[in-house]
Amino acid sequence: MKLHDFAHAPSSQRVRVFLAEKGIELETEQLDVRGGAQFQEPFTSMNPFHCVPFLELDDGTVIAESVSICRYLEELHPEPSLFGATPEARGVIDMWNRRVELDGLLPILHAVRNHVPMFAGRVVPGTRNDLPQAPEMATRGKEMMAVFLDRLGPQLDSNPFIAGGDFSIADITGVFALRMASAMEMDIAGGWPSVARWFGEASARPSFEILGG
Amino acid sequence: MKLHDFAHAPSSQRVRVFLAEKGIELETEQLDVRGGAQFQEPFTSMNPFHCVPFLELDDGTVIAESVSICRYLEELHPEPSLFGATPEARGVIDMWNRRVELDGLLPILHAVRNHVPMFAGRVVPGTRNDLPQAPEMATRGKEMMAVFLDRLGPQLDSNPFIAGGDFSIADITGVFALRMASAMEMDIAGGWPSVARWFGEASARPSFEILGG
Repeated sequence: MKLHDFAHAPSSQRVRVFLAEKGIELETEQLDVRGGAQFQEPFTSMNPFHCVPFLELDDGTVIAESVSICRYLEELHPEPSLFGATPEARGVIDMWNRRVELDGLLPILHAVRNHVPMFAGRVVPGTRNDLPQAPEMATRGKEMMAVFLDRLGPQLDSNPFIAGGDFSIADITGVFALRMASAMEMDIAGGWPSVARWFGEASARPSFEILGG
Repeated sequence: MKLHDFAHAPSSQRVRVFLAEKGIELETEQLDVRGGAQFQEPFTSMNPFHCVPFLELDDGTVIAESVSICRYLEELHPEPSLFGATPEARGVIDMWNRRVELDGLLPILHAVRNHVPMFAGRVVPGTRNDLPQAPEMATRGKEMMAVFLDRLGPQLDSNPFIAGGDFSIADITGVFALRMASAMEMDIAGGWPSVARWFGEASARPSFEILGG
């Protein structure tokens, strides 16, 4: 199998942190995303949603979407478990990963896409010349992230990690959500101290070294 | 185990369609959501995100989030498979379910929440008195749904179901996304005929009869 990757994309970085946590090495090819290779063959047929990363299996099957790639690799390499070792643990971790992603990461991702000049014309990941940047999406994304952090805080008051006692895929999702919130100048330490405590500990793990200081 | 449910909530209906497809019967208790029971004990501790449905296991573990509940039940009752019978099929179905949910259902859900008077004061699911409704979120949600449908259409030109040849969790997610798009007066048949063809076939399945005509 081969991972089609773009080192600067947060989605790619999420998968690479997962690989580092698991100790998995994959054949990896960098896609020329800035040159638009994802809109050209053979890549546009492999992933018609034009996002990175995506995993090409030996039989030609393509699995895109960062969490779907990680979930597939967890089945091939169960240890150490980042999705949970039992059906019950998997249910709880999946619940938390969804809360983080749907309530936190997605709103703040849309805020970034609708605010940062680099993303003008590609507000929806994997598109080009799509929709104008909408400042209301940036404002609302930060507001929704704050609502989410108000709900995440109590969990991290009494647990070391987002899904409870063990580091999991939900923490990887969470670190990337918090990095985007900081880029949007949200004051995490001032507003949500237990979230800031968790963020400092989680992002200090060796698996996050690929992101640079 | 017991499912805490609210029959009118789309998230609850997603799980109930899944249960009907699988032929699973669960002990179910209706929560008085309109009366605010989700903000009172014991429910607020069971699910501090205050959303329905959630599944209470016999040992007290709670699994919320519709797809997490379905994923857990699929592990206990693998047949008929709605998440995929092999790791590769599970990867592809999970990819499509995420595309539908992140790129389609979430934007149109936020459009509904920011537009329909009934949702004033609870723009974020599971909150109350949170954020004002933002008309720009309704507009942008419909625009993002249209971008998503432009990308879903080609898949349904050449496949009976969203993830390929078999009905899956991605189709359940998709039907609910399309129902919300129709509620926001998007003209699916006019703009995306293969999506309309799929929607007609999928939503005619007996499992969707619980939604009423």
